[in-house]
Amino acid sequence: MAENVTGPFQKIEHVGIAVRDLEEAVARYEQTLGTACYKRETVESEGVETAFFRTGESKIELLASTRDDSPVARFLEKRGEGVHHLAFEVDDIHKEMERCRKLGYTLLSESPKPGADNKLVVFLHPKEHHGVLIELCELIE
Amino acid sequence: MAENVTGPFQKIEHVGIAVRDLEEAVARYEQTLGTACYKRETVESEGVETAFFRTGESKIELLASTRDDSPVARFLEKRGEGVHHLAFEVDDIHKEMERCRKLGYTLLSESPKPGADNKLVVFLHPKEHHGVLIELCELIE
Repeated sequence: MAENVTGPFQKIEHVGIAVRDLEEAVARYEQTLGTACYKRETVESEGVETAFFRTGESKIELLASTRDDSPVARFLEKRGEGVHHLAFEVDDIHKEMERCRKLGYTLLSESPKPGADNKLVVFLHPKEHHGVLIELCELIE
Repeated sequence: MAENVTGPFQKIEHVGIAVRDLEEAVARYEQTLGTACYKRETVESEGVETAFFRTGESKIELLASTRDDSPVARFLEKRGEGVHHLAFEVDDIHKEMERCRKLGYTLLSESPKPGADNKLVVFLHPKEHHGVLIELCELIE
């Protein structure tokens, strides 16, 4: 186990929340968080439309599906609205993927994929983390 | 809407994850996060045993039930393991509860309750936040 306090994950980069109606959810979270959505972005490859809010050093990412067969659409059908994934920032995503492979974890893609908000991302299967879909993300400078 | 960037919530204080076997989950998250659990605490009033990890300015809180009729036991029965709640730090929990009441939100207790890790906490009903159980917490100095 690493000796440092926070380990190889720098921080919670964001918490992803799956919602059915993005406009309604943006209005609600703007009200609750008391801060405006600072970015909206569609990631066509994932079939998802996103909206971001800042809170401390982390972000809240609202996710709505843009097509019926997207991962978020399947999640909503199976589980309903709620927290979809938990994303940690890493300095070097390839190094972290290698560490996770050595730990025997199942990565959901062979290589990092472009994510919303200028990031390279990879997901770890929730079965190995007590039901939590973990995303690792590296900021693209 | 507030003009400041992060709003009345200072940061993500922690993400709570409901698990069936706390020992197994602690070992797994120590491995993944690469950092040791820094605190274990049982909150008898909530029927929950907790384990905390640091990541950046936030924490990961693993939650296991200590009795069959606890809120976490009911959550596990209904939804299975996974993210249970999302906690935001506030400076003044009474002031934030008043703000939430004015917004028409359903608070799950009339007054703040003692939580794990030296905090006063209150929960907002998930139905008003697209399936997310939100906790507000104020650190007790």
